[in-house]
Formats: sequence, C-alpha cells, structure tokens
Amino acid sequence: MSPRGRRPGGASTREEILEAARAAFAANGFDRTSLRGIARAAGVDPALVHHYFDGKEALFEEVVGLPHGIDELITTAVSGPREQAGERIVATFISVWDSPQGRERFQALVRSAATHADAAHLLRDFVSRTVLARIAAALAEGDEGGRPPSDLAIAAAGAQLVGLAMLRYIIEVPAMAQADPAEVVATVAPTVQRLLVG
Amino acid sequence: MSPRGRRPGGASTREEILEAARAAFAANGFDRTSLRGIARAAGVDPALVHHYFDGKEALFEEVVGLPHGIDELITTAVSGPREQAGERIVATFISVWDSPQGRERFQALVRSAATHADAAHLLRDFVSRTVLARIAAALAEGDEGGRPPSDLAIAAAGAQLVGLAMLRYIIEVPAMAQADPAEVVATVAPTVQRLLVG
Repeated sequence: MSPRGRRPGGASTREEILEAARAAFAANGFDRTSLRGIARAAGVDPALVHHYFDGKEALFEEVVGLPHGIDELITTAVSGPREQAGERIVATFISVWDSPQGRERFQALVRSAATHADAAHLLRDFVSRTVLARIAAALAEGDEGGRPPSDLAIAAAGAQLVGLAMLRYIIEVPAMAQADPAEVVATVAPTVQRLLVG
Repeated sequence: MSPRGRRPGGASTREEILEAARAAFAANGFDRTSLRGIARAAGVDPALVHHYFDGKEALFEEVVGLPHGIDELITTAVSGPREQAGERIVATFISVWDSPQGRERFQALVRSAATHADAAHLLRDFVSRTVLARIAAALAEGDEGGRPPSDLAIAAAGAQLVGLAMLRYIIEVPAMAQADPAEVVATVAPTVQRLLVG
C-alpha cells in the first residue's frame, strides 16, 4: 500500500512517479538521480517504482519520450563493420521514428524541448550521455589505427539525424518526407560515415 | 483612415494585418495569397499593408518568424565560387542565428512548427519555395558540366543545417553549443558541399 493510501494499481500512482522522476531528472541530471529519491518524492514505496518501471534507464526514456530499448538499438547500430557504420546508424534512426507512433513521439519530443527548458536539458543529457558517448565508445573500441572522431564531429553526425527527422516529420519538406527510407539512407549515410569514421 | 475607423498608426492595425496574413498564408500558401486579399480580410486599405510591410515577401518572413532579408542572404550565400559553396552556406546560416535574438527567433520558429500544423506548413512552404528552390537555381546556373543535386540531396543539406541549429540553440549539446563558428563551419561544410556540389 502506498504511504498516501492509494491502491498500488491506480493509474495516478504511475503518473505521480513519472512526475517526480521528470522533476528529479531535470533538477539533478541522470547520474545524480536515484530511484529511491524519486520514490520518496512521489510518496510511494521504492518497490512500486520497480513495479511500474524496468529500472532508471527505462524511467528516464519514458520521461524524455524516447522509444523503449533505444539504448540497445544504439549499441547495435554502432557495432559491426566500420565500413557500414553510417548506413546502419541512419537506417536504425529512421526505423525508430518512421511510423505513425514514432512520428508523434518525435513531434512531442521537439514540442517539449522547444517549450520547456527542463525537457531540453533532459534531452541534452540523454543525447550527450547515452547517444554520443556510446557512439564514441563503440568507435574507439573497434578502432584499428584510425583517429577517433572529435566530440564536435559526433555532434554534427547527430545534428544530421535530428535535422533529417525535423524535415521528415515536423516541417514535412516533400523531398525528405516522401522519400523511401533506402533513398534517405543512401543520401545521408555518407555524411554520418565521414563524420564518425572519416 | 481604416474602414473600421481606427487610426492608421495604431499598433493593433499592424497586428490585425499580421493575423490576417498568417491565416491567409496558412490556408492558401505563399503563391496564392495576395496583399489585396490580406487587406480585405484585415478590414484595412491595401495602402496600409504597404505602409507597414515592405511587400508580400517581407510580410511572409514576419509571419513565419524569419529574420528580415533572409532571402538576399540565401542568394549571396549560394552565389560565388562553387568550391566554397558549403563553407559560405554554413557560415551564413550560423551568422543568422548565432546571437541572443537569433537564438530566440529560432526557438520560437521550432516551438510554433512543433505545436501548430499551420506554422509547420508555412515553414515548409518557405523552405521548399525559397531556400531549396533558390539553392537549386543558383547551382544550376553556375553549372559547368556537373550534375545538379537531387531535391533529396538539397533537402539533406537543409537537414544538416536545421539539425546544427537544434543541437546548438535548442538541445544545447555542449560540443555543438560551445564550439566556435569557424570550427562548426569546418566540420559541417564538407557535408553541405558534397550534397549540393558533389
């Protein structure tokens, strides 16, 4: 039973945990936020947080509005032969957002990042901490004499992907919004490849 | 004197013209919107529209939230030696948005595009009609045997720029937000160059 006497299964409990998590992540960033602290702020038992959310990463993804398991998708996309890293990353990125639900999710992400500084901070934390760091680590690992990309080069590759989504899902510029995923990959992958692998 | 009896100099007249223009551009697109029709919808004399706004282009830029004279900036950036087209375009783009006012303007643009379908349509109209068409025309003109870029390649170059601004001004990813303009140009210009010139 929750300290406030609500039933554990109530929809509002889950909402309150999400609300507390949003505030905690925004105030303290991902690393300095604990599930125990979120439970305390929401006035629920920590076990309830675990009941609703599969760990801190999953809770963070839900707060930011990212698709579930995006973490593993990133890992898969950056692993494998370096020669096709650009292609894999662009194809994975499009597969994540290229559905009615994905499109809505992206629109919600941009809307909140553009209207709430907190949401923009969360997204920055995620992009820097998870996406860019993971890409850098994967490329450093598979490195055989090549120079690892600079943080700016990695950010520029991320910018190419974010911009692709802006034109495809938000502004809906016809050439980008109506193109086949394979065409988009063929056009954009060389940029990501150059920036990340050289 | 305006048909509704307000003084021509009143701030609200200008606002009403802008409101009517926003509705007309959103409903009919740029090409099928006339200053005369906007004046009629706002209930003012067409001369008043000319008094406040320097033509349809300027009115459109104000409605969409674009900096004044962006049209000429684009023309200047795409003219000149093809070998430095990428550098000129990226440097011009950063110079437009890289100020406190520019940053706010970009944030407002993204906010409205993400929250109002009308604003997204306006922006699409501008990007397709003005930016992409002008780039394509300038490159076709200076062409000496090279193949003109596809609409998708031009859109991908635009996506790289929009994404740059998203990471620099909205999400504020440190590597992109804190980099010198010259560093950003050096990192991103080869992408724009490859996509537009080949």
